[in-house]
Amino acid sequence: MGETQYQTVGQPITRTDAKEKVMGRTIYGVDLVLPRMLYGKALLSPYPHARIVNVDTRAARHLPGVKAIVTGQELPYTYGSTIKDRPILARDIVRFAGEPVVAVAAVDLDTVEDALSLIQVEYEELPPLLDPEIAMEAGSPLVHPELMSYSHSYAARPIVNTNICSHFKLRHGDIEAGFALAHDIIEETYTTQMVEQMCMEPHMAIAQADPVSGRYTLWVNTAAPYISRTELAQALEIPMKDIRIIVPPVGGSFGAKMYLKVEPIAVVLAQKTGNRPVKVVMTRAEELTTMVVKGPTKTTLKSGLTKEGKIIARQVTTIWDTGAYADCGPRISRNGGHTSAGPYYIPHISIDGYCVYTNKNIGGAFRGYGVQEVSWAYERHMETIAHQLGIDPLEFRLRNILQEGDENQTGQKVHSVGLKECLEKAAAAIEWGKPSPKSGENGSIRRGKGIACIHKATGAPSSSSAIVRVNEDGTVGLLMSTIEQGQGSNTILAQMVAEELGVPTNAVAVSQPDTDYTPFDSSTTSSRSTFHMGNAIRLACADILEQLKRITAETFQVTMEEVESKNGKAWVREKPDQVLNLKQAIGKYFGARGGTLIGRASYRPDVIAMDQDAQSPKAVPYYMYAAQAAEVEVDIETGKVKVLRLSAAHDVGQAINPVTCLQQIEGALGMGLGGALTEEVKVDAGITRNPNFHDYKIPTALDMPLFIPMIVEVPHRDGPYGAKGVGEPGLAPTAPAIANAVYDAVGVAYNDLPLNPERVLRGIKKQV
Amino acid sequence: MGETQYQTVGQPITRTDAKEKVMGRTIYGVDLVLPRMLYGKALLSPYPHARIVNVDTRAARHLPGVKAIVTGQELPYTYGSTIKDRPILARDIVRFAGEPVVAVAAVDLDTVEDALSLIQVEYEELPPLLDPEIAMEAGSPLVHPELMSYSHSYAARPIVNTNICSHFKLRHGDIEAGFALAHDIIEETYTTQMVEQMCMEPHMAIAQADPVSGRYTLWVNTAAPYISRTELAQALEIPMKDIRIIVPPVGGSFGAKMYLKVEPIAVVLAQKTGNRPVKVVMTRAEELTTMVVKGPTKTTLKSGLTKEGKIIARQVTTIWDTGAYADCGPRISRNGGHTSAGPYYIPHISIDGYCVYTNKNIGGAFRGYGVQEVSWAYERHMETIAHQLGIDPLEFRLRNILQEGDENQTGQKVHSVGLKECLEKAAAAIEWGKPSPKSGENGSIRRGKGIACIHKATGAPSSSSAIVRVNEDGTVGLLMSTIEQGQGSNTILAQMVAEELGVPTNAVAVSQPDTDYTPFDSSTTSSRSTFHMGNAIRLACADILEQLKRITAETFQVTMEEVESKNGKAWVREKPDQVLNLKQAIGKYFGARGGTLIGRASYRPDVIAMDQDAQSPKAVPYYMYAAQAAEVEVDIETGKVKVLRLSAAHDVGQAINPVTCLQQIEGALGMGLGGALTEEVKVDAGITRNPNFHDYKIPTALDMPLFIPMIVEVPHRDGPYGAKGVGEPGLAPTAPAIANAVYDAVGVAYNDLPLNPERVLRGIKKQV
Repeated sequence: MGETQYQTVGQPITRTDAKEKVMGRTIYGVDLVLPRMLYGKALLSPYPHARIVNVDTRAARHLPGVKAIVTGQELPYTYGSTIKDRPILARDIVRFAGEPVVAVAAVDLDTVEDALSLIQVEYEELPPLLDPEIAMEAGSPLVHPELMSYSHSYAARPIVNTNICSHFKLRHGDIEAGFALAHDIIEETYTTQMVEQMCMEPHMAIAQADPVSGRYTLWVNTAAPYISRTELAQALEIPMKDIRIIVPPVGGSFGAKMYLKVEPIAVVLAQKTGNRPVKVVMTRAEELTTMVVKGPTKTTLKSGLTKEGKIIARQVTTIWDTGAYADCGPRISRNGGHTSAGPYYIPHISIDGYCVYTNKNIGGAFRGYGVQEVSWAYERHMETIAHQLGIDPLEFRLRNILQEGDENQTGQKVHSVGLKECLEKAAAAIEWGKPSPKSGENGSIRRGKGIACIHKATGAPSSSSAIVRVNEDGTVGLLMSTIEQGQGSNTILAQMVAEELGVPTNAVAVSQPDTDYTPFDSSTTSSRSTFHMGNAIRLACADILEQLKRITAETFQVTMEEVESKNGKAWVREKPDQVLNLKQAIGKYFGARGGTLIGRASYRPDVIAMDQDAQSPKAVPYYMYAAQAAEVEVDIETGKVKVLRLSAAHDVGQAINPVTCLQQIEGALGMGLGGALTEEVKVDAGITRNPNFHDYKIPTALDMPLFIPMIVEVPHRDGPYGAKGVGEPGLAPTAPAIANAVYDAVGVAYNDLPLNPERVLRGIKKQV
Repeated sequence: MGETQYQTVGQPITRTDAKEKVMGRTIYGVDLVLPRMLYGKALLSPYPHARIVNVDTRAARHLPGVKAIVTGQELPYTYGSTIKDRPILARDIVRFAGEPVVAVAAVDLDTVEDALSLIQVEYEELPPLLDPEIAMEAGSPLVHPELMSYSHSYAARPIVNTNICSHFKLRHGDIEAGFALAHDIIEETYTTQMVEQMCMEPHMAIAQADPVSGRYTLWVNTAAPYISRTELAQALEIPMKDIRIIVPPVGGSFGAKMYLKVEPIAVVLAQKTGNRPVKVVMTRAEELTTMVVKGPTKTTLKSGLTKEGKIIARQVTTIWDTGAYADCGPRISRNGGHTSAGPYYIPHISIDGYCVYTNKNIGGAFRGYGVQEVSWAYERHMETIAHQLGIDPLEFRLRNILQEGDENQTGQKVHSVGLKECLEKAAAAIEWGKPSPKSGENGSIRRGKGIACIHKATGAPSSSSAIVRVNEDGTVGLLMSTIEQGQGSNTILAQMVAEELGVPTNAVAVSQPDTDYTPFDSSTTSSRSTFHMGNAIRLACADILEQLKRITAETFQVTMEEVESKNGKAWVREKPDQVLNLKQAIGKYFGARGGTLIGRASYRPDVIAMDQDAQSPKAVPYYMYAAQAAEVEVDIETGKVKVLRLSAAHDVGQAINPVTCLQQIEGALGMGLGGALTEEVKVDAGITRNPNFHDYKIPTALDMPLFIPMIVEVPHRDGPYGAKGVGEPGLAPTAPAIANAVYDAVGVAYNDLPLNPERVLRGIKKQV
């Protein structure tokens, strides 16, 4: 496994961007300054639901330095990645506290702020709809009475005259028959809280609109420039060729920077500034109000079990609070739904997901795209069942997990399933089965261990393209639109080029993504880049090697069939001294005036099949599997949970670079820890009450336990070198593993997140 | 020809960049401003030849705002496109007045100027070598005693212990035998003056050097970014992948902006500014001193003629004054030499070209690359012969011109030869044979008519690459490194994409050249882009259409062989309603999440063959042919020549866009007029005496005669749609056509340029 069969792949190379990043020299989008640049910002609604009675911008218009003011009334556009439900600036109605109402561009940010303070918006407050369960009831007032008139993609299934903007439904086997066969039936409900992605770099966009050429140029820290291009083209009716999106190095996305975010406001301001670029950067408070969050969920699981402790039937219902606008909520509820029965072999499954509008912060993508929410539910549920059945939780999972060739809940026969090894390694790393040393249990401290495992599918369908260019001196350029957002993609994708072409990794220059120049990629999300872009790169390199073979055949006057090639060399099979490397071939073919070899490829997995109602893909390119185990201390006097050890074993198929894999897992564990213990966007009466780093508590370095990240490698037949992905799964098992350990420590089953001291203490006290 | 067989090709489409250019909105390189940008400039040698005794930069270093000072002593590098004879800043010796000696970067240009004024350079003057004929003599002092130690490309043939940095030699037939058979032998000598390209936009470069990543980014108004990349990589030992050259829209090149010009000084300054970009822009005075000129030439032609007025033998010797450094002088002398016997069928030919160093301004490329100089000589010579033989000059040319299938002086059998039609059309347009109306000849005014024709080969070998991308909405991106420098290439190359893919031309976005992103192109010179890049584009589109066919075959479940495609559509041959256009195919193949089709191709003509000593290509991809005819008035009292009509018929193979072809010809005629009548860089004692628009006289709009540009189309079998090129030839026949008309008017044979009033009057007076 990844030991010696490759030269560069599998090597723990230091990240190519490490030095410039640790030296603080990377120019992120927020750092960009362009000549004649203006600054823009929007006035946000202070109310979760209100009618806009009047907008008076007269005073602001007279402020020197103000260059553009735009109101929603001027903008007939709507946009939305799944449902086109959203105006760029609110028209008539505001639907959440934080919705942009008026936007201003001016020569500096102080002038912008002054102008915003001069704008008078008269609102008529309306009662906000805040509870998704109330919102789902028949006859509830509607956040979007026009829902059925919005155009939407096949990913959304709105229900007429409701706030349900999408109903996801999956049926596998016969759920009623399954329950009828069950020896035990256990049902429970779990919730997850509202969380923010908290990227180090906030959202930004600079837009420039040339009134003469009709061209738009944007600099955006997006994870999906091509999706933004498509959405902008559709929303504003601009030919795609006239939109250029340049992506600077991105300081974290975690899903937050996918789909249009700051772009529309920057663009509509830029349309009024006569080719002067307009820069809009979110403050931290804006990140937590007007930008997307991970919406809260409520999941009910009902499981039927055989006498032997096998799950025979499972029914799952999840309510997804997507807030005021759908964004990708319908996709998240679908993606979460696809795996919400867990990585187990279960013959009879029924899954429903309801994505519901409320007058709250908009639910968007968050590392895992719904999987974190449902795995919290099913892995807490697995724990309860194990305890009720009196089976060791590890043993109970091992008894039920999916194995190579099993049909999972979507009907796909699974392949590359390292779940058993993940569970065993994660358990062993915290000495599963060996009681926590009682030395720790003095006074109010209780110790316990817990385990959890998950599966996550990559999104489908999607495609990636790559262009590889070999220069006259043998150095290589890789053109692609995978976004380096801290995950190390530039390093591991360069390693693949190096592997294929037989050059050192540092001979490969990776281009900055730019939709005018770097080829299409669907998005840098869904843990898809290693697999999809990796395959595109291998194909693009194969295109290069084919050209190398042709030049070699021409040079030595043999047929293509007589030539072999590998690792950037081609030779005549029968005369291995008749050999050319890439540099030599370029010299032979192009001569003194030079030239480059260009390889190009698009990769689109062809295993995608949709069921009749296009809600359930029968097959996705691959599933990732992971298990994590935690050992915790709980202080029963304060309710404080301290994680001592957190092991994480992830089946990545094949590690292209073990170090970057382990770094991805470690980063995710830290993030998962926050979501498990402290993080929550507190929304009260529709208003975000903690929009800052002081009141929204992310874990610091001092809060980190001992992380034990581990790689499991069960190669995937379609993956590049067998690789799958690792970006998202690292987060999903963390909270249930910790909560299961807390249960082990204090015997309280916590079904709601986060496990902050208040909640933990409340649970302990209730029990006593 | 070019009438109805194509949809877009051949159409007189308005240039796509017309609007932004006439509105003054184009951002040229000189307009660029980057954040934290510094300004740079070099102190130039005031002497044509001197020893640098001491450079004292101490006072300048203490000036606030100065960020970097570089002297030649610090720079061990040499560069040069053909001979690596040139330091970036002079070391020890300055070899021409205008040579950069010390460079400074500072926060603004005033500070730069102040710093330069504080730098003390102590020189010891040396006698300058100014006359190339003296320089050629054995025992002459040497401008470059180290010549033989410099590395050089195969294009240069230096002669040891001389100032001859290259000797070009071509032998065809047996010259002595040819002269022995001749009935008449006529010998004459002709000279051309030093001229400057006088681009509207002067040379500029911005360089940024990141000390952490090791990457160099340059913004340069070059016509050949890939050549600059190669030269920089070689000179400074930088991997090619670490050099990025971005080319903004360019305001004219005419050869001046090929090979390294301002780049090295900008780069060595940037190496000292810690990642702050440094901008260097030439003033007009610097353009005329430190930048390249068209060096002066002296050509002797000796022709042997049969009784029937056929040329049987021709010997040509040209002395090319390349100034202090070779730049591309050896290439120019070779390229000029290749055609210097004229577009005539001549059995016995001997050509020598001597490219000679002097202590003068550096001779570089100038529209035509030597052809203008030699055609002045051979077409004046043809006129003399015609008059001596008593044959009408048109008739004499028609009797001798190359015809399809003839062997020309390099031994290549010529193809696509529209020369006869060019001569006839040019002549007819000024009513050749009909005497100039004597009404014009009152008082001191004399009228006359003249004609001239030329041939020009495109450079070889060279290659072009293109990437074509089709977006989900059917709009197209064309990625290429052809430089739009005012010639209309972006328009006509987009037309070819439109033709191939069946879209309107305005659906094609053309990328700005950038070596990190746009694929290799050898250079935008040598009238090569329409042919070479056009072929690359057609092949890249064919790559797209092949993919379209494959998707169509998959969609309708037929074999590839059953599918046909044309103009962006593919269909099942037997069922034409089973058809997909590109947009539909992308939707079918990539689905909702999108994708783009990527076509790529490199084009390298394979007709290149070199003779043994690599001096004479036996074949180049194509020759261009042209004829021009002038009607002039000469004032015998003032010597002033007024051109009344100037007709120009050019064989372009196939006009991709007749309007842009005619514009190219018209622009060249204006430039040719200047070179014929007024333009000259006046160098006295090695010092340029007229480095400004006041004393260097280019013709204004008011000086323009009636231009009658015409297109002749004799398709070339290898050209895209039959096209060849048109950029350079428009200039070459202008001066001899005018001089021949002056001869017709006043009976004086002027063999030296320009025909300014002083020279014309002197000739008339001498005659009288």
